[in-house]
Amino acid sequence: MLLNTGTELLLGDVNDLHLAFIAKEILPLGLRLSERRTVGDGQVIGETLNELFPRADLIFVTGGLGPTTDDITREVTAELVGLPLIPHENVMAAIRERFEKRGIKFTDRISRQANVPKGATVLPNENGTAPGLYLKRNINPAIPSPHLLLLPGPPRELHPMFRQSVMSILREIAPATSFARRQYRLVNIGESIVERAVGRQILALGDIELGYCARPSEVDLRIIGPAVSLEKADALIREKLNEFIFSSEDESLEQVIVKLLAKREQTLAVAESCTGGLIANRVTNVPGASAVLIAGYVTYANKAKIDTLGVDPKLIEQHGAVSEEVARAMAEGARARAGSGYALATTGIAGPGGGTDEKPVGTVYIGLASPNETIVNRYFFPNDRLTFKEQAAQAAFDLLRRKLM
Amino acid sequence: MLLNTGTELLLGDVNDLHLAFIAKEILPLGLRLSERRTVGDGQVIGETLNELFPRADLIFVTGGLGPTTDDITREVTAELVGLPLIPHENVMAAIRERFEKRGIKFTDRISRQANVPKGATVLPNENGTAPGLYLKRNINPAIPSPHLLLLPGPPRELHPMFRQSVMSILREIAPATSFARRQYRLVNIGESIVERAVGRQILALGDIELGYCARPSEVDLRIIGPAVSLEKADALIREKLNEFIFSSEDESLEQVIVKLLAKREQTLAVAESCTGGLIANRVTNVPGASAVLIAGYVTYANKAKIDTLGVDPKLIEQHGAVSEEVARAMAEGARARAGSGYALATTGIAGPGGGTDEKPVGTVYIGLASPNETIVNRYFFPNDRLTFKEQAAQAAFDLLRRKLM
Repeated sequence: MLLNTGTELLLGDVNDLHLAFIAKEILPLGLRLSERRTVGDGQVIGETLNELFPRADLIFVTGGLGPTTDDITREVTAELVGLPLIPHENVMAAIRERFEKRGIKFTDRISRQANVPKGATVLPNENGTAPGLYLKRNINPAIPSPHLLLLPGPPRELHPMFRQSVMSILREIAPATSFARRQYRLVNIGESIVERAVGRQILALGDIELGYCARPSEVDLRIIGPAVSLEKADALIREKLNEFIFSSEDESLEQVIVKLLAKREQTLAVAESCTGGLIANRVTNVPGASAVLIAGYVTYANKAKIDTLGVDPKLIEQHGAVSEEVARAMAEGARARAGSGYALATTGIAGPGGGTDEKPVGTVYIGLASPNETIVNRYFFPNDRLTFKEQAAQAAFDLLRRKLM
Repeated sequence: MLLNTGTELLLGDVNDLHLAFIAKEILPLGLRLSERRTVGDGQVIGETLNELFPRADLIFVTGGLGPTTDDITREVTAELVGLPLIPHENVMAAIRERFEKRGIKFTDRISRQANVPKGATVLPNENGTAPGLYLKRNINPAIPSPHLLLLPGPPRELHPMFRQSVMSILREIAPATSFARRQYRLVNIGESIVERAVGRQILALGDIELGYCARPSEVDLRIIGPAVSLEKADALIREKLNEFIFSSEDESLEQVIVKLLAKREQTLAVAESCTGGLIANRVTNVPGASAVLIAGYVTYANKAKIDTLGVDPKLIEQHGAVSEEVARAMAEGARARAGSGYALATTGIAGPGGGTDEKPVGTVYIGLASPNETIVNRYFFPNDRLTFKEQAAQAAFDLLRRKLM
């Protein structure tokens, strides 16, 4: 269980990313969060803990350990488990030193952070004042309670504390497990098609948990379970869907593209009309992209297609800027101009305006010029402008990925 | 109350940003979230709703409306309020049309998304298949229930639905309030400087709630309160911070740029090295960008800077590719090549590698060529690669914005 406290969270002023951090850290131990609650500051923390005590093995509580009057997690918890708060010598000394170093006046309110429920374990805070606290299960034998981990709210305090102190405690608590997890990222395929291909058969294995997450032109497929079943599910997924899987290591499609090009010592140029720089932008998000990307040309206007890429104006006149012929000329023009091994080109109608009966909004041609041939495919992504751009970029990356495999 | 469903959330695979979005949207109505819960897929949704029913006035439920077997929010809710699910003609027709348009086979599992609890209001989904559902308080008089809003999980479906359908429902439900809200978006200024400039004075007005949201090189400032105090706060903010405010209407910086250029009938070209296409990509996210953006040149390699933009190789040799001289030559070269009124150029060191003592990672030169002059500024954004790119793009947009004002 995870309980996040802080009124700023409920107002939406701060995005609470503790859940994602903690879930990923504890999964290799076979531990999973069954529920997360977010509540404001104050007495509601005690009420919620009271409700969670009988149904949790372990509760992480984040926030409310600081010096201000609304920070009462420590006090509320001590009261619930019926233990007195006792000033902790070493913690007090560390806080005092921290404040002297910064020339800040030491007040009673600050010293409150050195109070520790009797018998609790102190988790040092490298990047802040308030230490974390670990109260083991039934720390007061008279009052049943789950394992409790009280952690600071700021991620830059919580993250190092979690790795340095919390993980070793969890390793002691966690039951031995043989559960593992695998993840597959698939491109240019829909969630329902993925499910039809493998869903029923994986669930028939009986002990595998299956999850999907859909993004524009992408599906992430997740399986969790004991190693033996996981092998079976893996074989099934690879048999049915292998060509769509671009990563089983949580890489982005652009990371995979940069890696594939670098391995082959190949270079890329990009000529973008409807994607407007998105493809170049995604490639250059990858460290090391400069070794493979020579140039990008965002040729939004016809003039730029003609001038920069050498597209024959007659092609545009005859077939329109959104056409197989122009996509081909753009890809070949970009490849020649940049002197790259490969070149991708996109031309399409992102909308909301500009569609015709023959080429409605959502139509896009994607060209790939390679050393030995030029391919052009037509796609149809009738969605909002940003999703359209994402889908066109995904299709372009996938075209190149398949060529490089 | 907000209930987020989805095992992927508890596994930390997706960062759940619904809380922040919904909290901000409903605040002007005087509505606040008292608690948020995140649970996995499956029967736990029903158990949690059952627990929340007696203590909530309104529950937003996100996720679990899709076609896969783990999507059961609709079914569970209908069962809880004791209402049958009835296929909805119009929804079914809309789904069928959506799938036919995309050439995807229509299956029973997909049609499940057209089922509607008897008496519920359908909230159309512009960007997806499953509609949202509104079940008013005590929709089945025999079973007490709070107002229920079942919403899709993907933000690109939820956000437009919230603004187009949910807000008007909430306005009916919410108690009357005279509170209003204003929002200011500021660029190239830090949160703490904004706070020092206006924070204390605004809070001294006594009845204004003040909120900040910081993004790369951007601060959003939010004030909520009665109209009279809001006017005073507004005057103060404009007096102290006017030059940094690029929008008080929740527009993005690129929307403001496209609007300013279009109003002046001016055009833009972009030459990007370290931003790698991000500036062009952001501009082309704005509908109507094609009227102002002539071309973008992502000249990552020196060869491309020389060949495409006509940068003198001697300049690169003498001053390095990351230099004031090269930024100037790139901006002027892009303007000449595209025949645009204005041209922006970026050259810098995104990292992680490539820094020197004189020009450490984070250094960037930004050039702006205009009809009457070329300006080049040097900036320092020593951050991770993606934040660096965002900050460089923000600085470039701001340079142009100030020129156009």
